[in-house]
Amino acid sequence: MEEFEKTKRTKLVRAAKRGHYDHKTVHAILDEALICHIGAVIDGKPAVIPTSHWRCDNRLYIHGSKASRMLRAAKGNEVCIAVTLMDGLVMARSGFHHSINYRSVIVYGVAELIEDAAEKLDALELFMEKIAPGRWSELRPTTEQEIKSTTVLAVDLNEVSAKIRTGPPVDDELDYALPVWAGVVPTRLTLGEPIADTRLAEGVDLPAYLRREEP
Amino acid sequence: MEEFEKTKRTKLVRAAKRGHYDHKTVHAILDEALICHIGAVIDGKPAVIPTSHWRCDNRLYIHGSKASRMLRAAKGNEVCIAVTLMDGLVMARSGFHHSINYRSVIVYGVAELIEDAAEKLDALELFMEKIAPGRWSELRPTTEQEIKSTTVLAVDLNEVSAKIRTGPPVDDELDYALPVWAGVVPTRLTLGEPIADTRLAEGVDLPAYLRREEP
Repeated sequence: MEEFEKTKRTKLVRAAKRGHYDHKTVHAILDEALICHIGAVIDGKPAVIPTSHWRCDNRLYIHGSKASRMLRAAKGNEVCIAVTLMDGLVMARSGFHHSINYRSVIVYGVAELIEDAAEKLDALELFMEKIAPGRWSELRPTTEQEIKSTTVLAVDLNEVSAKIRTGPPVDDELDYALPVWAGVVPTRLTLGEPIADTRLAEGVDLPAYLRREEP
Repeated sequence: MEEFEKTKRTKLVRAAKRGHYDHKTVHAILDEALICHIGAVIDGKPAVIPTSHWRCDNRLYIHGSKASRMLRAAKGNEVCIAVTLMDGLVMARSGFHHSINYRSVIVYGVAELIEDAAEKLDALELFMEKIAPGRWSELRPTTEQEIKSTTVLAVDLNEVSAKIRTGPPVDDELDYALPVWAGVVPTRLTLGEPIADTRLAEGVDLPAYLRREEP
């Protein structure tokens, strides 16, 4: 993360090392992450909120209520969308060289309003495909009113960058001799055992797309 | 999340239900989360980056390289910091009522530069206490140069709000009869088995503060 790049030298070296701009890398991070943070300028001031996102080809989508203050501010305007996957705590021999392993993408662009109802519905189906592939066709159809009251925004993935840090701490050479434990504590978002709604209709089983492999 | 509040009615009801402004709730979310997303306005445009944060009393801290473009933009200016803990995927009987269980905090404020070296060092020690309690005293002391090249910013937790969604999906009454699996897939950030640096000094054991309880 930027905050760990504390000297000019380190910053230059790491910033170079951590720059990944190829589409494949960017898309993989966007597709794995379930939430993003979108920033916009509202009344001249910065505003950031968490929301879900999904991707189709070279576009990133978000959606929300028509009443959402953030979406109204974002619509047709410049936004910045940050997606971050945290992979580990990097424990160094000095406080200074502690870091975080992560994969992140930052997207800058204008948030375009998707107005066509069919296009909106297609986009929302793609979102469900990301979360739970195959589920969309099991659900009752989305109503016209529901589509109307949902705002879908799209940002082209043109001005976009990925940053990645992996691996062990990088300590000052003399510090490697210190009797301090150093290494990485891996972190990841894990899915737990699904909890069925108490009002589940009789005879409904957990669908295959939600079944977890036993560890 | 805001994007799931799709009708005015729902938004009003949920926004009210999900508003938590007491200090204890806000502090617990900030203290549990390891990363935040900070937004600032740079050249009139929104910018968001991930970074680590920590809290002391009624102040939120972030730090980074003196060279960080974001920290230079944030310093003395309005920022918005969002902290989000994702707790589950909420699977409803219609696409429309799918949601996410989460706990989030949004902080608005001016990022104050901590200039005093001793104050900076105290703040950085508190950060380490959050990540690995007791580790700070095991590390070699932070050098004057390291302190100099680190920017520490603080934001008072005055303009702050928390939003929380918990529990099962809330479906349209008629939809409860549908033969669709509904419920919650819990999500959480888990720590894995620590991976020791290959250059660990001989005889250094994993410290107690990094040992995991067996599941």
